[in-house]
Amino acid sequence: MSIVFHDLIGADPARPFSPHCWKTAMSLAHKGLPFERNNVCFTKVPEVEGGFSKTVPVIRDGTKIVADSFLIAAYLEETYPDRPSLFGGQGGQAMSRFIESWTNSTLHTAMAGIAMKDIHDVLEPADQAYFRQTREARMGKTLEQIVEGREAEVAGFSAKLMPLRLMLKSQPWIGGSSPLFADYIVFGALQWARVTSTAKLLEEGDAVTDWFERCLDLHDGLGRSVPAAG
Amino acid sequence: MSIVFHDLIGADPARPFSPHCWKTAMSLAHKGLPFERNNVCFTKVPEVEGGFSKTVPVIRDGTKIVADSFLIAAYLEETYPDRPSLFGGQGGQAMSRFIESWTNSTLHTAMAGIAMKDIHDVLEPADQAYFRQTREARMGKTLEQIVEGREAEVAGFSAKLMPLRLMLKSQPWIGGSSPLFADYIVFGALQWARVTSTAKLLEEGDAVTDWFERCLDLHDGLGRSVPAAG
Repeated sequence: MSIVFHDLIGADPARPFSPHCWKTAMSLAHKGLPFERNNVCFTKVPEVEGGFSKTVPVIRDGTKIVADSFLIAAYLEETYPDRPSLFGGQGGQAMSRFIESWTNSTLHTAMAGIAMKDIHDVLEPADQAYFRQTREARMGKTLEQIVEGREAEVAGFSAKLMPLRLMLKSQPWIGGSSPLFADYIVFGALQWARVTSTAKLLEEGDAVTDWFERCLDLHDGLGRSVPAAG
Repeated sequence: MSIVFHDLIGADPARPFSPHCWKTAMSLAHKGLPFERNNVCFTKVPEVEGGFSKTVPVIRDGTKIVADSFLIAAYLEETYPDRPSLFGGQGGQAMSRFIESWTNSTLHTAMAGIAMKDIHDVLEPADQAYFRQTREARMGKTLEQIVEGREAEVAGFSAKLMPLRLMLKSQPWIGGSSPLFADYIVFGALQWARVTSTAKLLEEGDAVTDWFERCLDLHDGLGRSVPAAG
């Protein structure tokens, strides 16, 4: 029986965009586990699996339900130890938390200032109202104010990727010679940008761009199967 | 036979300060390997082990000589697999490269703008001349110009630690439930600051400060055995 994967969508169900859900899609594909997406828009998330979680991704594997992209990866690692590892050992699992924290505090924060309005615009009308209300309350600004510094954020984005760029001089993946969940954490942020926004964040000839293109090719081009915004 | 550890010193041999050498000191202690420090000042580095490396740390273990803090950790991990792991598996070894790149591009860069003149001042006169010449050539500025933005760098330093601060909500060490080499990478940068500079970079009540204090306590207080500058 396939794993059910509750994935966030906007107005176009063929264009999933959530960074956290992309981490889970890549994790399931990495483990070679068949899964079926259940498309969920923002305002329907509270109904997923009887109100199991306030956020997606959520997966159902037989009778087991798990929420949160990191906990899902940890569940898959523990439950399917004979399939390709997502962490490469306990040290890798722990350090993936650092990479998650770096991604959230650096890339996701920048993405808010760049694409908050773009994300709003890909949603259905009912979701747009919900998204505007919750994000404006959280940030204490209107969506339009949040992206007022958009051009400066776009111009500064490449510099934020310096740790990854430097690391790529040593090895082709954050996971070393092959990708691990840590790669999918950073991929999720950049795929979120790629699917929702036309902002040009990655430059040709940059090692980070080459790494991202390799990520898009993984697992039969799972990431590339959704075209870039534009 | 003890491992010989060539460690960088300034005018006071009891106050080693190099971030990269601190990583190696902590790595050797983590493995429980006895070592003897050979104190080397900047201008004597080219003479270490017959000119083996342009930089320290360098270790000699029997007939084997290894340079570079990361390569030394990898050597110790491979050579002493039955002693406590520095990486927690292949994934952890790979991800330690990301943490190294983050530390170098974020914390070390900030440290240059904060403490370049302080570092100069702890050196012996001959080393001071060498340090000034090489650093000024590399940065295209005088040491005094490099630290012109010092107050702003000090004020902004805490924000740069946000990825670590966020991660500490999940676990007490970058290595998870116990420290690994990745912890020593970040520790090295902050210990460099602690030993050379009176700039107050860590605030009381910050989870990062608590983590750093735990690092100072490790291995019978190895890091704490050198008092803070002041």
